Amino acid sequence: LRLLSKAEVIGSYPFKVATELRRRVRELGIRIGRMECGDRNSITDVPVVSVGQVSLVRGEGRLVPGKGPVRTGVTVILPHEGNVYKEKLRAGLHVHNGAGEFTGALQVMEWGIIETPIALTNTLNVGLVHDAIVEYMLEENAGIGDQDEVILPMVGECDDSYLNDIRGRHVRREHVFEAIRKASKEVAEGSTGSGTGMSALGFKAGIGTASRRLASSSGGDLGVLVMANFRGDLIVDGVPVGRNTQTEETERTSGRSIITVIATDAPLTSSQLRRIAARVPLALGKVGSASCNSSGDISIAFSTAERIDTAHVPITPAKEIVNSDALDEFFRATVEATEEAILNSIFTSDTMKGRDEHVSLGIPIDETLELMKKRGRI
Amino acid sequence: LRLLSKAEVIGSYPFKVATELRRRVRELGIRIGRMECGDRNSITDVPVVSVGQVSLVRGEGRLVPGKGPVRTGVTVILPHEGNVYKEKLRAGLHVHNGAGEFTGALQVMEWGIIETPIALTNTLNVGLVHDAIVEYMLEENAGIGDQDEVILPMVGECDDSYLNDIRGRHVRREHVFEAIRKASKEVAEGSTGSGTGMSALGFKAGIGTASRRLASSSGGDLGVLVMANFRGDLIVDGVPVGRNTQTEETERTSGRSIITVIATDAPLTSSQLRRIAARVPLALGKVGSASCNSSGDISIAFSTAERIDTAHVPITPAKEIVNSDALDEFFRATVEATEEAILNSIFTSDTMKGRDEHVSLGIPIDETLELMKKRGRI
Amino acid sequence: LRLLSKAEVIGSYPFKVATELRRRVRELGIRIGRMECGDRNSITDVPVVSVGQVSLVRGEGRLVPGKGPVRTGVTVILPHEGNVYKEKLRAGLHVHNGAGEFTGALQVMEWGIIETPIALTNTLNVGLVHDAIVEYMLEENAGIGDQDEVILPMVGECDDSYLNDIRGRHVRREHVFEAIRKASKEVAEGSTGSGTGMSALGFKAGIGTASRRLASSSGGDLGVLVMANFRGDLIVDGVPVGRNTQTEETERTSGRSIITVIATDAPLTSSQLRRIAARVPLALGKVGSASCNSSGDISIAFSTAERIDTAHVPITPAKEIVNSDALDEFFRATVEATEEAILNSIFTSDTMKGRDEHVSLGIPIDETLELMKKRGRI
Amino acid sequence: LRLLSKAEVIGSYPFKVATELRRRVRELGIRIGRMECGDRNSITDVPVVSVGQVSLVRGEGRLVPGKGPVRTGVTVILPHEGNVYKEKLRAGLHVHNGAGEFTGALQVMEWGIIETPIALTNTLNVGLVHDAIVEYMLEENAGIGDQDEVILPMVGECDDSYLNDIRGRHVRREHVFEAIRKASKEVAEGSTGSGTGMSALGFKAGIGTASRRLASSSGGDLGVLVMANFRGDLIVDGVPVGRNTQTEETERTSGRSIITVIATDAPLTSSQLRRIAARVPLALGKVGSASCNSSGDISIAFSTAERIDTAHVPITPAKEIVNSDALDEFFRATVEATEEAILNSIFTSDTMKGRDEHVSLGIPIDETLELMKKRGRI
Repeated sequence: LRLLSKAEVIGSYPFKVATELRRRVRELGIRIGRMECGDRNSITDVPVVSVGQVSLVRGEGRLVPGKGPVRTGVTVILPHEGNVYKEKLRAGLHVHNGAGEFTGALQVMEWGIIETPIALTNTLNVGLVHDAIVEYMLEENAGIGDQDEVILPMVGECDDSYLNDIRGRHVRREHVFEAIRKASKEVAEGSTGSGTGMSALGFKAGIGTASRRLASSSGGDLGVLVMANFRGDLIVDGVPVGRNTQTEETERTSGRSIITVIATDAPLTSSQLRRIAARVPLALGKVGSASCNSSGDISIAFSTAERIDTAHVPITPAKEIVNSDALDEFFRATVEATEEAILNSIFTSDTMKGRDEHVSLGIPIDETLELMKKRGRI
Repeated sequence: LRLLSKAEVIGSYPFKVATELRRRVRELGIRIGRMECGDRNSITDVPVVSVGQVSLVRGEGRLVPGKGPVRTGVTVILPHEGNVYKEKLRAGLHVHNGAGEFTGALQVMEWGIIETPIALTNTLNVGLVHDAIVEYMLEENAGIGDQDEVILPMVGECDDSYLNDIRGRHVRREHVFEAIRKASKEVAEGSTGSGTGMSALGFKAGIGTASRRLASSSGGDLGVLVMANFRGDLIVDGVPVGRNTQTEETERTSGRSIITVIATDAPLTSSQLRRIAARVPLALGKVGSASCNSSGDISIAFSTAERIDTAHVPITPAKEIVNSDALDEFFRATVEATEEAILNSIFTSDTMKGRDEHVSLGIPIDETLELMKKRGRI
Repeated sequence: LRLLSKAEVIGSYPFKVATELRRRVRELGIRIGRMECGDRNSITDVPVVSVGQVSLVRGEGRLVPGKGPVRTGVTVILPHEGNVYKEKLRAGLHVHNGAGEFTGALQVMEWGIIETPIALTNTLNVGLVHDAIVEYMLEENAGIGDQDEVILPMVGECDDSYLNDIRGRHVRREHVFEAIRKASKEVAEGSTGSGTGMSALGFKAGIGTASRRLASSSGGDLGVLVMANFRGDLIVDGVPVGRNTQTEETERTSGRSIITVIATDAPLTSSQLRRIAARVPLALGKVGSASCNSSGDISIAFSTAERIDTAHVPITPAKEIVNSDALDEFFRATVEATEEAILNSIFTSDTMKGRDEHVSLGIPIDETLELMKKRGRI
Repeated sequence: LRLLSKAEVIGSYPFKVATELRRRVRELGIRIGRMECGDRNSITDVPVVSVGQVSLVRGEGRLVPGKGPVRTGVTVILPHEGNVYKEKLRAGLHVHNGAGEFTGALQVMEWGIIETPIALTNTLNVGLVHDAIVEYMLEENAGIGDQDEVILPMVGECDDSYLNDIRGRHVRREHVFEAIRKASKEVAEGSTGSGTGMSALGFKAGIGTASRRLASSSGGDLGVLVMANFRGDLIVDGVPVGRNTQTEETERTSGRSIITVIATDAPLTSSQLRRIAARVPLALGKVGSASCNSSGDISIAFSTAERIDTAHVPITPAKEIVNSDALDEFFRATVEATEEAILNSIFTSDTMKGRDEHVSLGIPIDETLELMKKRGRI
């Protein structure tokens, strides 16, 4: 496994956003875990969930704060097709390492419900994206802040400053609105949306998704979407790829956080959804993370099974799976789908050059596959 | 308000356990809060809940570890009249200050269910009482540890070493079994059961209970039982009694913990029960606590509305109150009933002399009532 | 104690912001607790701490979202006089009820340090104020997001929509910068800064502050600043004022959150600062809160004793108070100063009329004092 | 890789406790991670730490509760060679999945110190072992419960009921005392001490240990000891051994918990030690766990760098590593050493037959090594 020199890498420029040449790990013959994946192998296998993304890629060369180069974006997860403020969903949130931001987290942990879309972006853009989600919610709901309750939007972040002019806060109101408008069942992966300028485990990364089909009596799917931007020695299905390829250069490349969004259509309580979100670290270990000091490792899980109107129906019957061993299937599905989603975020990402000639390497696919075959994993 | 001298106090000895002369604050004309209390103004207003206690009072004079003097006991709360291992209940637990023990707490926080009685005792007796509960559960359930799951009993503690030979661990298997056998709707208060040797807010205290009737559509009651053994300047319904009466002597007297058990027959989720348990500190502030460094301030709330069989019915419909403002009534009930239960634990406790001539003063009732009247609170 | 009719109240309009007629409770003869207060009885008794505020009051009549009426603002606490990004401070954070937002909370809980000013504002303005703090920090620190680490600003909120056009998000970048620029040792109280449109316990409230002098060997002060906007029946030093004065009207008036900021110059670890922040609920109970479902009850405590440079001095000697009973003084100081700060926020607030003729009553001071005297509390 | 039939397995009986034939994974050529291990590759590489164990193996055939067969024991970690009650250590605790017991956990989380040895045993023996530790501490410290503070012993547990007569609670006072007396630098692994009757990831397991040398300026070692008894598909250094060998029989075999004890002589705060303990789940994922519903996944980390006397020295200078990237080395060391300790617990365990002819298979070493070689991992 030969590492490209920086010269060669830069020579291969320009990169492509969400290239067709790159593929998801399952298409490459890598099979994570033993459960079946859903039809799309995506968070959007959960029927009502959709995802919209806007990628911002402009300029090259020296960093001029406020000008660029720009390598960033926004990814929005719409929990269902309706008005989530009026029809809230149950949710749980887990903070494995809190060196990151996920606005609205305290309320999710307290109430166990979500009532806005979930937006992902770069660290310094949290404020503007938060304000854009507020504006979107106000437009959709004339009663908010008048006769109805206010809202606390959910905005998660990772730091894309290695490639991006993060000081410029280039994600604006219109990009958030566009991402919401474009939300669909198709989820672009790799260097796209909020993941545009991000890197993980020594390689270019960004957005990834995967899912698992649930065999339990409740049926349904569990889907995962990650914004991957964290450090470690990449392990692909047990094979220590990173230990062979990583240099100090690639170490510096990586950001230090991962936000994980988990959706399921199975009927679960907020406490159970929190427990599911708490299984994400098991997958992080498997791909090579040691959850470094500066890493914001935050995960949220929500269920679309039941819609809740807190204002007008204070008492409601709930379908519920008791905290029994029936949950184990969900835990396994979470670990498997998260591991696969992270790998997808890497394998679908091309080499990218950003500000100040900083380069984040796309994983060398052929060499990696060769190594995987040698190790009997394909 | 004159404080008895130590000589006078000791002269008034022997004390009485759970004296008839002393009365609950409501009978004395002190009215806490604005909600109505239940029929018994007790945790046992929740229909299926019962409480059993054994008090151990033996010997006087110098401490001879293992011999006495003994001023301790055990209090057991039976969550319902049946087999709680087979018919589990939802529960939530809150640790306001963790300098105490409540075995089983981690499982209650994780699973949101309880499956054993709740036992209260002195700090160094936790092990033996834990083992006694295990033995009781094994006798009742031949399958535990064979084809069925094991159990993690719940045992809470406070330190009664100011009066009691705590090194002697005088609470034994037979006392725990006796407390369970004697469990009934009548809850003795003050220096009784596990509260026998305890003191709070500068005065002799121990076990106290109170309840509030719920007006919500779900109906029912919320009842509280405390084992009170914590420091502070006693405030009685807003009147700073302690600031006028407390001396260094009384300060030293008090232990430094409070365990609070909350029961309700309203249908609540484990997450909601945790939130209810988290309202206890509001009552602690009102009676004069600053939750000192060594205080184990731990509270647990459970609902008797639904019985759960995790082994055989993994999926069950649940009646549920959504996390809406409908909860506020429960929060208020918790604060009011906890405040009243603490005051009951003090007002029903006589002066007690324990090991090494240590004396814990019963609150001087006449003087306190006089002060309350002067302040327009009766 | 007669409640003004709505007509009379509106007749007494226009209100005054931070009126001179109103006074702090200590000046009125009300004495909370038994510890001495600092020289200013303010969070700014901690030597390097300063506070800046901008109040926005414009328009009357019908709510026209985006236009007004405006009754809001921003309050900024500067933890020390230098560059807090380069010289970070230890901190701890406690979430008593999480139905609110405090951005940056997860990082404070994980790392135990703060590295930006703390800004307080209304709920829907969190995003814009967050972005303004980012911009301020970027201007002060050219390295952020370039060769240095990014930041996660701390912005806390309460809902002022009863009086304010909260949908208009009237707090802008320039107001945040102005508040920072104006920061000083003088802390205006009542309807000022972020507290401009807020109400608590049935009366107009907003910003309040108080402090306690520490007698411990470490010396120093502990100061508290609150943004008070929560429900309950007002209790003033044990006297249930609210139960006599409150109506459904006043109940509706109040928001449902309180953010508490605690500063001290004593050398404490982040874990100890978290424990101090966790004493705030004890004070909330004392003033009449039951911590309602929708209340964001969040508190943060920081120490100015030691400045930390995480980038360049990874190992540092720390002066430290062990988790021993020496902490009890800090806990008591926190409860006392928080109670007094909340009362100050109410007693310094005049009646205010806001959007749609909504009126929040200033506490009737003469009648309240009369009641206090009758109850022997002055 | 051929799985032995049950007949063959039982034919290979009697098993050996802590056999010499079995070896630690490093001796077998399996190398976990990239850091160097300490001299002993053991928790006892931390200079003052020692471990004592007593294994109880008696009887065969049908379960007769109270009689046997007995396959259990107790493992005690002594944090330093002195009196840990008088010279306390800093510690942090993390609950990844709370379906287990670790008494004293709440106090460790609140105070960040430990003051007793750490004992590990089977689930139903927690009470008796707790009481034995109390007795040991009382014998060593005449002041406890008299003029000095009481204690809350730390006892962690896993369920060994698949092989052991857990209802018999065969671990008694004398076994705990013997384990303490025998404590030394030599740590037997596999089916020994509290791990005697335990199984993990489909194979016989029990106690395992490993360590990593710290390169940081602080120097020192970080050592890990596990009591491994949890479910999943065994992965050995990335190779999915379990997926090839596991049957329903082996699945049933495994208990469902893991207790992890981490020691280091580097100077860390309790908050940092908690963060280190929180890295354990990353290792659990790597060996194949999905942290099932009934799993008590609890970890504790302590530092021997500084001894604390809370009673008499309230203020002490502390050497401290700030929460900076200097911590990353500790996090990596924790993940690596935990993974290796778990594997050691499996590779050093022989097949064991317990109650009711229940058999837990020792991992077939030759076949596993062959598979590892085929996958290029040796």
